[in-house]
Amino acid sequence: MDGEMTHTPPSGWTDPTCPVARTLDLVGDRWSLLVVRDAMDGTRSFNEFQRRTGIARNVLTDRLRKLTAHGILVQQTANSGRRQEYVLTAAGRDLLAVIVTLRQWGERHAFAHGEAHSALLDQYGHRVPELVPASSDGARLKVSTAHVQKSP
Amino acid sequence: MDGEMTHTPPSGWTDPTCPVARTLDLVGDRWSLLVVRDAMDGTRSFNEFQRRTGIARNVLTDRLRKLTAHGILVQQTANSGRRQEYVLTAAGRDLLAVIVTLRQWGERHAFAHGEAHSALLDQYGHRVPELVPASSDGARLKVSTAHVQKSP
Repeated sequence: MDGEMTHTPPSGWTDPTCPVARTLDLVGDRWSLLVVRDAMDGTRSFNEFQRRTGIARNVLTDRLRKLTAHGILVQQTANSGRRQEYVLTAAGRDLLAVIVTLRQWGERHAFAHGEAHSALLDQYGHRVPELVPASSDGARLKVSTAHVQKSP
Repeated sequence: MDGEMTHTPPSGWTDPTCPVARTLDLVGDRWSLLVVRDAMDGTRSFNEFQRRTGIARNVLTDRLRKLTAHGILVQQTANSGRRQEYVLTAAGRDLLAVIVTLRQWGERHAFAHGEAHSALLDQYGHRVPELVPASSDGARLKVSTAHVQKSP
């Protein structure tokens, strides 16, 4: 915990002691994560989110409201003084690792060989290296070697 | 692509050139990802998925069917010869990085200080190290330094 805590969903947690489940309660639907993706890419206004995701306006309204209520986005007035904008909080920006792993899995498994897709580049214009889960000894972590210890 | 390609959803892709969006089309809802989480933890039978997630039976049926159709789970007959089981494919097991980053974000942001939660341990019983996105020079990747290059 870094002091910027997200907020409990009004309906409560699905599985209160599991951090995976809590994250999914807060951001775990396709549209919420696409909104987070676009916010990371600089999208701020309702119309731009709508244009980029193609999401229905009533669904977008709902997801922006939830992401704001959960502490992922914060609403602010644009420099023009007219429009409301949505920008990521520190907790929202910290979802970068989630977005990167979703992207890299998609690159590996959801495109045919040679099929064109967008790429995530770093400040040097290089592809962002693959994010590989590791054990404490640095070896690749596998499903068969990891296990969940229940909450005390 | 590693030769084990997942399958296009019947409704088509939301944003065909974006790997983040394709992954979300395949696994991007809370219940699907909780099923993947539990499959990684060894759950195989319908009743055990139902018990662990608390998901409604009709929703679980739908998600198991979709995850199987998308090439994330494969159905097989249990050793007893009676029951149908669901096990992760190689593409499904490769979602480990996604599950780990969801978990670690939750640990950082969705629990109050000192609040109990489950932990992911490696084969030595140590906590799995944080998965941190990096640039090509090894420095921490930030939202402000990463950018998406559109598909050619």
